[in-house]
Amino acid sequence: MKKINVGIIGATGYGGVELVRLLHSHPNAQLVAVSSVSFAGKKISDIYGNLKGIVDKVLTTEDTVITSSDVVFAALPHGLSEIIASKCREKNTILIDLGADFRLDDEAEYKKWYGIGFEDKSLHECSVYCIPELHREKVDKSCKIIANPGCYPTSVALGLAPLAKLGILSPNGIVIDSKSGVTGAGRSLSDGTHYPEVNGNFNAYKVACHRHTPEIEQTLSELCGSPALVTFVPHLLPVNRGILSTIYATADIHSVEQLHEIYSNFYRNEQFVRVLNIGDEACIKNVAMSNYCDISVHFDKRCGKVIITSCIDNMIKGAAGQAIQNMNILFGLDETSGLDLISPAF
Amino acid sequence: MKKINVGIIGATGYGGVELVRLLHSHPNAQLVAVSSVSFAGKKISDIYGNLKGIVDKVLTTEDTVITSSDVVFAALPHGLSEIIASKCREKNTILIDLGADFRLDDEAEYKKWYGIGFEDKSLHECSVYCIPELHREKVDKSCKIIANPGCYPTSVALGLAPLAKLGILSPNGIVIDSKSGVTGAGRSLSDGTHYPEVNGNFNAYKVACHRHTPEIEQTLSELCGSPALVTFVPHLLPVNRGILSTIYATADIHSVEQLHEIYSNFYRNEQFVRVLNIGDEACIKNVAMSNYCDISVHFDKRCGKVIITSCIDNMIKGAAGQAIQNMNILFGLDETSGLDLISPAF
Amino acid sequence: MKKINVGIIGATGYGGVELVRLLHSHPNAQLVAVSSVSFAGKKISDIYGNLKGIVDKVLTTEDTVITSSDVVFAALPHGLSEIIASKCREKNTILIDLGADFRLDDEAEYKKWYGIGFEDKSLHECSVYCIPELHREKVDKSCKIIANPGCYPTSVALGLAPLAKLGILSPNGIVIDSKSGVTGAGRSLSDGTHYPEVNGNFNAYKVACHRHTPEIEQTLSELCGSPALVTFVPHLLPVNRGILSTIYATADIHSVEQLHEIYSNFYRNEQFVRVLNIGDEACIKNVAMSNYCDISVHFDKRCGKVIITSCIDNMIKGAAGQAIQNMNILFGLDETSGLDLISPAF
Amino acid sequence: MKKINVGIIGATGYGGVELVRLLHSHPNAQLVAVSSVSFAGKKISDIYGNLKGIVDKVLTTEDTVITSSDVVFAALPHGLSEIIASKCREKNTILIDLGADFRLDDEAEYKKWYGIGFEDKSLHECSVYCIPELHREKVDKSCKIIANPGCYPTSVALGLAPLAKLGILSPNGIVIDSKSGVTGAGRSLSDGTHYPEVNGNFNAYKVACHRHTPEIEQTLSELCGSPALVTFVPHLLPVNRGILSTIYATADIHSVEQLHEIYSNFYRNEQFVRVLNIGDEACIKNVAMSNYCDISVHFDKRCGKVIITSCIDNMIKGAAGQAIQNMNILFGLDETSGLDLISPAF
Repeated sequence: MKKINVGIIGATGYGGVELVRLLHSHPNAQLVAVSSVSFAGKKISDIYGNLKGIVDKVLTTEDTVITSSDVVFAALPHGLSEIIASKCREKNTILIDLGADFRLDDEAEYKKWYGIGFEDKSLHECSVYCIPELHREKVDKSCKIIANPGCYPTSVALGLAPLAKLGILSPNGIVIDSKSGVTGAGRSLSDGTHYPEVNGNFNAYKVACHRHTPEIEQTLSELCGSPALVTFVPHLLPVNRGILSTIYATADIHSVEQLHEIYSNFYRNEQFVRVLNIGDEACIKNVAMSNYCDISVHFDKRCGKVIITSCIDNMIKGAAGQAIQNMNILFGLDETSGLDLISPAF
Repeated sequence: MKKINVGIIGATGYGGVELVRLLHSHPNAQLVAVSSVSFAGKKISDIYGNLKGIVDKVLTTEDTVITSSDVVFAALPHGLSEIIASKCREKNTILIDLGADFRLDDEAEYKKWYGIGFEDKSLHECSVYCIPELHREKVDKSCKIIANPGCYPTSVALGLAPLAKLGILSPNGIVIDSKSGVTGAGRSLSDGTHYPEVNGNFNAYKVACHRHTPEIEQTLSELCGSPALVTFVPHLLPVNRGILSTIYATADIHSVEQLHEIYSNFYRNEQFVRVLNIGDEACIKNVAMSNYCDISVHFDKRCGKVIITSCIDNMIKGAAGQAIQNMNILFGLDETSGLDLISPAF
Repeated sequence: MKKINVGIIGATGYGGVELVRLLHSHPNAQLVAVSSVSFAGKKISDIYGNLKGIVDKVLTTEDTVITSSDVVFAALPHGLSEIIASKCREKNTILIDLGADFRLDDEAEYKKWYGIGFEDKSLHECSVYCIPELHREKVDKSCKIIANPGCYPTSVALGLAPLAKLGILSPNGIVIDSKSGVTGAGRSLSDGTHYPEVNGNFNAYKVACHRHTPEIEQTLSELCGSPALVTFVPHLLPVNRGILSTIYATADIHSVEQLHEIYSNFYRNEQFVRVLNIGDEACIKNVAMSNYCDISVHFDKRCGKVIITSCIDNMIKGAAGQAIQNMNILFGLDETSGLDLISPAF
Repeated sequence: MKKINVGIIGATGYGGVELVRLLHSHPNAQLVAVSSVSFAGKKISDIYGNLKGIVDKVLTTEDTVITSSDVVFAALPHGLSEIIASKCREKNTILIDLGADFRLDDEAEYKKWYGIGFEDKSLHECSVYCIPELHREKVDKSCKIIANPGCYPTSVALGLAPLAKLGILSPNGIVIDSKSGVTGAGRSLSDGTHYPEVNGNFNAYKVACHRHTPEIEQTLSELCGSPALVTFVPHLLPVNRGILSTIYATADIHSVEQLHEIYSNFYRNEQFVRVLNIGDEACIKNVAMSNYCDISVHFDKRCGKVIITSCIDNMIKGAAGQAIQNMNILFGLDETSGLDLISPAF
């Protein structure tokens, strides 16, 4: 089979460079072009020494990437993807967008949380939001824009989907206490990501006002079939990678064994979601550097609460890996192609 | 004033050695004896090189400590303190117990969570559980046993007391998502505290079954005036020190400003509790190495949830520092004596 | 081509489990058996949750591994490999030994540093010590025992080989200041690898008496053609992986440009050794999780000292990866087979 | 005794804020003013939350600090201190300069390494460079400018002084391999101090060209009585605090016992220098947060090399603590006043 020509816009951000690393090793893809506004003209291996002698491509412009690729991955801050989508449409290039611009269906919600509206609604009408385990049937060769899900929302949706789809999850009063590694904050320098500030530290941030909240609610509402309302509090962990979401919910459940059976059944054919044995705790190190989502289920009988811990690598299952999984689906490849990464033991 | 003769049983555990460090610098105390079962006969500075040339005391026996001290601090695993308390009573020595043995009033609860009962109920009748900011009026010179609170329960009780005492906290449905540094697991070696396992990792543990749960509920019930029921999930943070508890509760509150005013008023005369400005987030680094508890308040209007983050150093305000604060109260000293520690900026 | 049947003895140590991870993904190898004394009868994925659903093999005995494999990798403490080698010889199984038992040619040196002698000298006579970039011509299908080099010696030999083979390195007065991540100390628990002891800490250990010293000197002596004498001081870094050796030597060199040219030429055909541009510094993160060795060269004109920094992943190029590279050579495979690992950017 | 009025210029840098923390608790000093160019007008506790409720001083100008203080501590990048010194002279205010401007006696050397010359030589003539253990006799009430030593040079000078002053140290061929925590790089943001870049990483930097080199040589030359020449290579450690220098030298020594005796004698009356027992290794955690310097001595008999490890907290003994120690000397106070800090055990 001819390899898919892939390009990356925003290749020197953390999401972008992770795409470079994974796509370089993808058996069905060929990395043809990478772009960066900040470093155009330099070799990407001058910015990221890990790539020296392996990927020495010169960083070019977004237009060159779009022109030379079958699929473009865009890994940019929100607000920049509509124009790229528009250019891709002209060139009949597929866009897999790792940014937030195409994730929300409801323009009003988008405006409320991101402060800007949709410029070209027709682009949004043809985009598909896809967490593969939940939405893969929506993706086929006719798709031109895939909205790749956010990292927190991926961990939460996978963590609650079995209960939500079964109709036994109470869509209100859900508490999501998430903890993310620092790469989630990106490569831009800030006081809050200066090494001596993070090392040994821990704190919540954007309490009950993080932009991933409407995305979480959109997916849960769709799965539940009724509007979901969540309290979402992210925290910054002193680690490079990983998200662990601890989710507190009410559901029509009477034992942990029942809960475990529901989850095991729901994900029994999924390669990338592992429902751990009762008593085993999902942890970042078992999913870091891989496309896996590990889920632990608990039932607090005293309070009648379901407690789910859902754990992913924020940059792989929460970004670059899931984007590649979506590309695989779109091209009819084995979904695990290029994603057979095993988390290192240490 | 004559200095108080203080001794430490279990001086080579993490809680114990922190007591050594703080009491050595206490202006009104003199460290007269330290004991350790594992290292008896050695100098404590042979075990902890930081003390070399500063505290070179030889580790002795528990009996010697009890005989030579006015106040004994015991920093031991649960199940060992009753005997010490009994010996202290004989010698008329005051016991400040950092273990769990005297924390719960209800023997049935203790048995349920710890698997053993009370041997000598008379000891429990005269012991006093004291978080200074909430219970200091219970402590005076007649006290012979002080049950020093647990680390997680301290962070939670201080985080909810203003609402609980005002009678506007709903005592049910409280979710407590706590994160602790590794010293909370003590100095004993285990797979789970081996450096390569913890570094870069994060996970929940003892989900909804941690032994601090009944202690948390006991204090909240007392403050609320009605039985409280909490879902408590601790997590292990890849840092040495600190606890941050994120607490989700329902209360008769309509704005964050109202919430902030309640907390500011409640703690306005407390040296060691800082209610942060609205928008500022409590974080471990601002309390580490100090006896402070920092509290941030939030109100999720969309869901009607109060969200409190409460942050302490697990080994100081959550253990050794609070124990010294209790000693200060008992002896009528300034409560901050020996505790004027400023958290380093980095 | 038929896949090579490979087995691992000591699969639950850090070196062993890294072999499991890498060999599972090797295109020309099939992992047929893994053994562990401590965990026999359990699934390896019960010990290492990262392998769950990927490698769920039950841990068996060393004899079963030897019987069922074409090549056995042994990742054990020193003193245990001779017996395995002997059993392998009987079964005509190839042994790649990651331990120290076959690394030193001189029994007297081995006895001096390890305290025990050679039991069966015939085994030692047919073993081959191989750092691929320096010794690959010694390895062919007739090899039955490969002594896989130690982690520190690999970093040092690659760091000095260009000067040593050119005959311009002074073999005396070499100072090697090495720093290693904690996985180098293995999976066994110890006070020195307890998380709160390592985090934020740094120290030298086994100063001028580490057992890798004679191995370093053996290789340098061979490369120089005269006896080399080195001062070797290892240090423990608060990271999981990686070794950086800073090497101070005297050589017949007059500029950094000359030095850089010598190194670039020497390694120009090597996939796994990257000589960095003048001014770029070798660092752990650019080689971690990969089989690369990055080398930076410097010349201190003021003092006439050559300063080389040589950086590897202690568990890959310094252990499991190099062992697989040796297997590839022995079987006439592409040397990079199964080793096309790119260090993640973060 | 009346307290000394002290002020800090550059109070929001890492050295500055450490001075704030330590001077606030100094029994003989009163912190009267703090300045910052970047944050003038704000409370220092708005920048550093650890100080909230403890030091809430508003940041003012350098002139106000100079006018209101008996002693000014300046913690600024090099090139800014001459003007301050000049203003202090006018106001008869003592200056303790933590920057590099007054450390080198030789203007040519300063120009060579720092690129600028001395503006006002008279200021340099009356400044005194003082590592208390080595130069305290040079400091008295007549001193108006103290050049506080650099962090690396302090660790090296204390590590070699006993041999140098005895005249048995060979002043050439000294190799200094130093490792520093990230706070040494200051509070300014940079790619190299972004958390995901430092965490898990390690590298050398400014190899054989760091500006502390001439300062190290100046002190060693003075101690040896002949020009010293050193190869100095600093490395960046993934920790917040601490420096460990591993020093390789040749001296007229024949055993480690002899070496140990020389060091023990030399420092027998020093409170802040601890010569560890033979076999004990200096480590960062035993000196972090304290003013101690721990020294381990080794003798590599095989190569005839003396190996010294010297360990300090870069921000205390290497900056703020040593500056306060110098102030204590200048004012005739107990040298340990305000510096009785015990390194925490974890």
